[in-house]
Amino acid sequence: MTTVEPHAESVCEQNQHGYVQDKDRYLNRMKRIEGQARGIQRMIEDDTYCIDVLTQISAITSALENVALGLLKDHLAHCLADAVREGGQIGADKLEEASAAIARLVRS
Amino acid sequence: MTTVEPHAESVCEQNQHGYVQDKDRYLNRMKRIEGQARGIQRMIEDDTYCIDVLTQISAITSALENVALGLLKDHLAHCLADAVREGGQIGADKLEEASAAIARLVRS
Amino acid sequence: MTTVEPHAESVCEQNQHGYVQDKDRYLNRMKRIEGQARGIQRMIEDDTYCIDVLTQISAITSALENVALGLLKDHLAHCLADAVREGGQIGADKLEEASAAIARLVRS
Amino acid sequence: MTTVEPHAESVCEQNQHGYVQDKDRYLNRMKRIEGQARGIQRMIEDDTYCIDVLTQISAITSALENVALGLLKDHLAHCLADAVREGGQIGADKLEEASAAIARLVRS
Repeated sequence: MTTVEPHAESVCEQNQHGYVQDKDRYLNRMKRIEGQARGIQRMIEDDTYCIDVLTQISAITSALENVALGLLKDHLAHCLADAVREGGQIGADKLEEASAAIARLVRS
Repeated sequence: MTTVEPHAESVCEQNQHGYVQDKDRYLNRMKRIEGQARGIQRMIEDDTYCIDVLTQISAITSALENVALGLLKDHLAHCLADAVREGGQIGADKLEEASAAIARLVRS
Repeated sequence: MTTVEPHAESVCEQNQHGYVQDKDRYLNRMKRIEGQARGIQRMIEDDTYCIDVLTQISAITSALENVALGLLKDHLAHCLADAVREGGQIGADKLEEASAAIARLVRS
Repeated sequence: MTTVEPHAESVCEQNQHGYVQDKDRYLNRMKRIEGQARGIQRMIEDDTYCIDVLTQISAITSALENVALGLLKDHLAHCLADAVREGGQIGADKLEEASAAIARLVRS
């Protein structure tokens, strides 16, 4: 996969990555997730009931999943679509790479 | 679920929650996850390639899942086991509550 | 884990497994899931649109997840609870075994 | 989403869906999954130990997940790629539809 990235990425860079236009929104979402991770530390320090800590962890996991699905959607609509239109090996490599990323996401 | 917590929690509090003996280890793991969330913000600020950001998000999700599974295991072995030994409604309530937490975890 | 099952299982067998009282309901649910798996074969034979096949696969996955969560809840309430009340190594082994099963479920 | 399918699907039909060239392989995999669902019914009828039933359910879930990831990969490489090359609303609709399918898969 890494061997194809020089080409693949150059297609994407010209278009400034899928998420660039939503950069501030993604940054805010990750800042909130960072805050939630800090909140869980406080819960643990305060001996909060285990089940309540677990509920909060499920909330972060869902928030991360939504960020990942958003980034992936932007990636398909920009980087992948551009590579597919370019065609040939570049398109094929990007399709392979996107499918591998989806599999990691589904399995994680 | 909330209606049962007064009893249920009191059983658990006497035993200082399942995770208390590993508190420092859980705090360190959550501190690392907080750092990873900050790292993703830097990646986004630096226009890192989308797929690399996604890989990093999958890594945090797995780390959170492992923390949740650890907390749940400690919870079953301490709070749930104590409540079951106490028996009656307290045991039944804790079993219900643990099953609901497991379902949230499996579905998140 | 396998080394402990002789003891662990004997506790559970005396109590006829957690799911025994709901056996017919579980059998019906699995029969429906078997039917859904056959339905997907027909969809593939008929060249049904990929996204519609995927939607149907997500439906089976959710149905299986619900069966698993039901079995696990019954297991905790019967086999695990009995072992915990019996105490000692039997209780500890069952807690270990249940936590491993939950982890497999969360990760699958 | 349904409003866009007439166009979207026609693009894909000309190309005979992504999975058509692997139809027999997908049929075999679904036949095996159907057999596994039948196997679980036998396990339940024989009062097999709950944890062993759960392990078998995790195995089916993973097998279904792999079928879904395969179908999705084929879909991206054929139906989606064709629609993207066609461009305009057709490409945009297919990207939207694929992202929704991925989200269902990640959340199920």
